[in-house]
Amino acid sequence: MTTAPPVVEAQQVLARCRTLTEPALREAVASLHPWPHRMASFSLGWCEADGTPATGGGGKGMRQALAVLGAEAVAAPREHAVTAAVAVELVHTFSLLHDDIMDGDERRRHRASAWKEYGTGPAVLAGDALFALAVERLAGSGSPHTAQALGLLAGAMRALVHGQAEDLLFEARPWTGPAAVTAAEYEAMAAAKTGALLACALTLGPALAGAPAAVTDALAAAGRDLGTAFQAVDDVLGIWGDPAHTGKPVHGDLRRGKKTLPVVAALAAGCEAGRRLGALLGTPLDADAARRAAHLVEEAGGRAAALALARERAAAARQRLSAAPLAPGARLELLALADHLVERHV
Amino acid sequence: MTTAPPVVEAQQVLARCRTLTEPALREAVASLHPWPHRMASFSLGWCEADGTPATGGGGKGMRQALAVLGAEAVAAPREHAVTAAVAVELVHTFSLLHDDIMDGDERRRHRASAWKEYGTGPAVLAGDALFALAVERLAGSGSPHTAQALGLLAGAMRALVHGQAEDLLFEARPWTGPAAVTAAEYEAMAAAKTGALLACALTLGPALAGAPAAVTDALAAAGRDLGTAFQAVDDVLGIWGDPAHTGKPVHGDLRRGKKTLPVVAALAAGCEAGRRLGALLGTPLDADAARRAAHLVEEAGGRAAALALARERAAAARQRLSAAPLAPGARLELLALADHLVERHV
Repeated sequence: MTTAPPVVEAQQVLARCRTLTEPALREAVASLHPWPHRMASFSLGWCEADGTPATGGGGKGMRQALAVLGAEAVAAPREHAVTAAVAVELVHTFSLLHDDIMDGDERRRHRASAWKEYGTGPAVLAGDALFALAVERLAGSGSPHTAQALGLLAGAMRALVHGQAEDLLFEARPWTGPAAVTAAEYEAMAAAKTGALLACALTLGPALAGAPAAVTDALAAAGRDLGTAFQAVDDVLGIWGDPAHTGKPVHGDLRRGKKTLPVVAALAAGCEAGRRLGALLGTPLDADAARRAAHLVEEAGGRAAALALARERAAAARQRLSAAPLAPGARLELLALADHLVERHV
Repeated sequence: MTTAPPVVEAQQVLARCRTLTEPALREAVASLHPWPHRMASFSLGWCEADGTPATGGGGKGMRQALAVLGAEAVAAPREHAVTAAVAVELVHTFSLLHDDIMDGDERRRHRASAWKEYGTGPAVLAGDALFALAVERLAGSGSPHTAQALGLLAGAMRALVHGQAEDLLFEARPWTGPAAVTAAEYEAMAAAKTGALLACALTLGPALAGAPAAVTDALAAAGRDLGTAFQAVDDVLGIWGDPAHTGKPVHGDLRRGKKTLPVVAALAAGCEAGRRLGALLGTPLDADAARRAAHLVEEAGGRAAALALARERAAAARQRLSAAPLAPGARLELLALADHLVERHV
């Protein structure tokens, strides 16, 4: 008789890791000047724009969970897990603050984005404060491997900037023809923009603990795969997601002319629906045209292609996580998160 | 017969340190994605907006010089001097890029500021890229004291954010009455916004070399004093400086309602000119009114007070640099820079 493996619920994993991380994260953010502190707390979902405490907001906490589990996977000391999770969550919040400015996104998690609420300049400042805080906390980890961990964080930032630059440049490129964005270019952008920080989350704790390169390399590769999967799912949700869940306007990405994977794949399919989509995207889209465009993307197989990529990359990540020498409990929880990441609301 | 000490020319010191730093700085910036690379090169004065190579632009290089000399003052290895100088110059350029956005400054060093030239979002991205690059290069220093040096850099960033937040909040406060900005508040802001990075510049090389706390503490205190002096002179130049030298519009700070030290001191003087200034500043200033305001600031002693503070703080810095156990050659060059800093164009 064999014992069935315990059922691990992703929501419970996320909640456990949030509980572990939040006190140190709140303490770090509270050390900021009151103004960036207010803006950061708003961005983290801890308060309303005027400072009134809020509950239930904020993100899923995927990155802090990956950081905690990465550390636990190599039996790193608890304080390294928390330091890594705090640093990664601070960098993630920084990147949301600045990306919303660059992308002109006015909504984030069912509320106005920070730049819309407080102004562009103050939101730039709040982001800077959070990035500096991440470096400060990581620098004070007390680990003899701190410099290496900071190199990882800076490398993730370099990749984030690279991916964001590509994403912004994509917007100026044509929908069709030889200069159109290819699926391969999209994947490279997503691996940089989203995958690098997930890879950093998974490896930061192990780096602080001085884990061997074989382990950190496997975790980094899994993180990049998960990032591509995550971004592909995000793109699907950005077109077909329920605004009640996504917290963003319906068809927002389509109307803004974002080169997302479902659209890129649909246009590259070479079918009639793809050709009609290409013609439609050359014009400004009202709500009705955006709805028709979404139908054409689906008809041309764009949605299916994006979800197939997401599932393929999540499976690759599962494979890597299963093969690496990791603590069994953390491995199970990581696998649960990998599944959750592609199955949320799709 | 005594030998007179050699005459040290600040311009020669700045040029020597720039020559030492520039190859590594260019190599670091060239490693960025082409788009932030272009924007960073423009901000550093290395190229025109379209990428055409430029010469003679850029800043004075005060911070990179302080970093080189701080390292030389403790006989740190050459590579630590260069790493420190590159990191500090990258952080300085990052802060100019973002501060110009926050302050709405459209001109910088005789040209359009980066956000004006490339757009706000791209300029935010370029700044982020430079900050991340500074952390990356410092993390890769190879020194066993790297974590401590990164802690210093992050601490300087924390202070920069604090000072910038205060400076922005000052703009919303009244010119007169109990809620007016005091000279003490101004000094605290200047020490944070400007002094912290000069202190970081002076101590980063010594920190990488593991210099004793007595030396780094003295250099940090000298850096903060120099920062306050530097900011006070900058404020004077912002009102009375020749636009041909400052690269900024005449009376720009006055017309934008910046709470600079000469104005704060003039309003606090309690004299008739100060009262007339207070009444004038309550109204929008055209070019003529700005000229009259500048006269009233001078008549009320604001210019003299700012220059007196600058000279007092520069003298305090000189004292600290003279008392600390530093290599004699570096000390002489540091003293020359301290003098230059308050005597430029005033």
